[in-house]
Amino acid sequence: MSDIKNKPNIAVLGATGVVGREILNILVENKVEYNSIKFLASSRSAGSSIEFKGEKHTVVEATDEAFDGVNIVLASAGGETSKRFAPVAASKGCVFIDNSSAFRMDKDVPLVIAGVNDEDLKNHKGIIANPNCSTSQLMLPLKALDEKYKVKRMIVSTYQAVSGAGLKAINELTDNVKTNLIGMPYEPSAFKYEIGFNVIPQIDVFCENGYTKEEMKVTNETRKILHFDESVKISCTAVRVPVYIGHSEAVTVEFENKVDSKEAREVLKTAWGVEVVDDTNNFIYPTPKDAAGKNPVYVGRIRNSIAFDNGLDFFCVADNLRIGAALNTVRIAQSVIKMNLW
Amino acid sequence: MSDIKNKPNIAVLGATGVVGREILNILVENKVEYNSIKFLASSRSAGSSIEFKGEKHTVVEATDEAFDGVNIVLASAGGETSKRFAPVAASKGCVFIDNSSAFRMDKDVPLVIAGVNDEDLKNHKGIIANPNCSTSQLMLPLKALDEKYKVKRMIVSTYQAVSGAGLKAINELTDNVKTNLIGMPYEPSAFKYEIGFNVIPQIDVFCENGYTKEEMKVTNETRKILHFDESVKISCTAVRVPVYIGHSEAVTVEFENKVDSKEAREVLKTAWGVEVVDDTNNFIYPTPKDAAGKNPVYVGRIRNSIAFDNGLDFFCVADNLRIGAALNTVRIAQSVIKMNLW
Repeated sequence: MSDIKNKPNIAVLGATGVVGREILNILVENKVEYNSIKFLASSRSAGSSIEFKGEKHTVVEATDEAFDGVNIVLASAGGETSKRFAPVAASKGCVFIDNSSAFRMDKDVPLVIAGVNDEDLKNHKGIIANPNCSTSQLMLPLKALDEKYKVKRMIVSTYQAVSGAGLKAINELTDNVKTNLIGMPYEPSAFKYEIGFNVIPQIDVFCENGYTKEEMKVTNETRKILHFDESVKISCTAVRVPVYIGHSEAVTVEFENKVDSKEAREVLKTAWGVEVVDDTNNFIYPTPKDAAGKNPVYVGRIRNSIAFDNGLDFFCVADNLRIGAALNTVRIAQSVIKMNLW
Repeated sequence: MSDIKNKPNIAVLGATGVVGREILNILVENKVEYNSIKFLASSRSAGSSIEFKGEKHTVVEATDEAFDGVNIVLASAGGETSKRFAPVAASKGCVFIDNSSAFRMDKDVPLVIAGVNDEDLKNHKGIIANPNCSTSQLMLPLKALDEKYKVKRMIVSTYQAVSGAGLKAINELTDNVKTNLIGMPYEPSAFKYEIGFNVIPQIDVFCENGYTKEEMKVTNETRKILHFDESVKISCTAVRVPVYIGHSEAVTVEFENKVDSKEAREVLKTAWGVEVVDDTNNFIYPTPKDAAGKNPVYVGRIRNSIAFDNGLDFFCVADNLRIGAALNTVRIAQSVIKMNLW
């Protein structure tokens, strides 16, 4: 095979968004090799200019024809755009790696965290889904713990950064805080309530059962990724906090098997993509500010849970734009290339 | 009895602190009647001037003699000061109502949330303890739910405001955020890490079991206040968030009895000191910014927990300086007066 044949033609859809830009950064960092690359976006952003590897490129409007000849699409352009283009791209032979929630629970679409369930990629039919940010970061430590102790029940409370809600939300946090600092209240627009010096216990819309969609994603996506059946009980409370980048999660897990925090800490130290930051004697534990811009999922505050006989508590922090979105998207593309699934 | 005899001589110890000032506000709001009032503080703050009911008063240094003739002390001056003066004051016949953690787990000291376990006040021997802020706000909804459904297990994640750490912490949040907004990192001092645009999963020092003292307070104080035995399992993860006033808590409770969220919502609506703010169809739920400066414990996001067969999830928000500290201190004083326990 020639070099050309071994390297895919890549398209980045939604290249101008918060996650899209991070995908471009990580394509460079991870030295992803390709034959050609193109940058796609909605008609609104089409025609704008984007810098990649020191060169300016024109963003092209996403149309059916734009996917002709493309092998792998890294998409982060929202659910509606993915619904519109993923089936088209797949029908043209593309592997469409989607950041949106549109296809995640589709039984024909693998939902994958690279390093956790890459084997599921083999079943793809042209579309592969990237899990939601709050689920993604948790899968790396949880996979390792599940293999050793078998997860029975999990309760998660999140502390989620505004960047998960896009550029408008990032700017709103700044505006809100600046307005409050001169003693004025702020009229929110990206959020339902002020996010400056506040926390908001709603992310995404509400479901019939009183949980938000964001919370149910943790339940349903975790089950799909780790192949849990319905007997594994998972609940989440998802809360937005005034942090720019970095989601944090307070996690309590009950296991089938006996668990000990010292041993679990060693298990987590060897877990792929995980970095243990846990030395309470020296006040060492992860915070989102330290995790921003970095690739590992940081785990600290590891302790035997006093709520369960076989339980573990830990605090899990990661860059939501990376492992929660762009990094995993690029890693999936790399697995697809490596496993020759395109 | 004459009017004079029916009204106590009051002392506010730690009158110049964040909580002390709020005690003064609430003494006025709640129209607490007294024969005399004096304002005590450490030698550092003694001699300074304080305004109360429109008049300036001089803050007096706390000494053994300062408690002579005082009937009720409302104390918020830190654990060391309480350890120093509470036994002295009690020996002089004062009722010493203490905000610190110094005596909370002492078996001779009632730990009381007014409206929840006032009966325990009858056993006081001169010292009464006010629970920790993160426990306090949870007791009002939990008492009502426990009476109906019997608590078996509880998992709490907190989102705690900086005002719980005092004036220095409040100022540090402002300084930190301002510094970050001009693109600079901040060197923290009140906190171990930057609190601006960050969350910190440590409040108070660490215990042997890996939990912080703050987290163990939720376990131990809840058991004492609601007379739970060791079979009731309670765990907490306590996290500081960049909010000035208002603690939030994501709470999952497993009950002995069958629970339904619709019925539980009605139970909570009739709970003393609780206000249900829960209409997700209209995006109505509590946030700390809305709770600041107010007396109720706000409860929203009430839903059947999908983690337990008989479980309930809810989000509980309150002004940490009020129900979590000053308001409950004043209410205890009012109960002591009403129940003639001084």
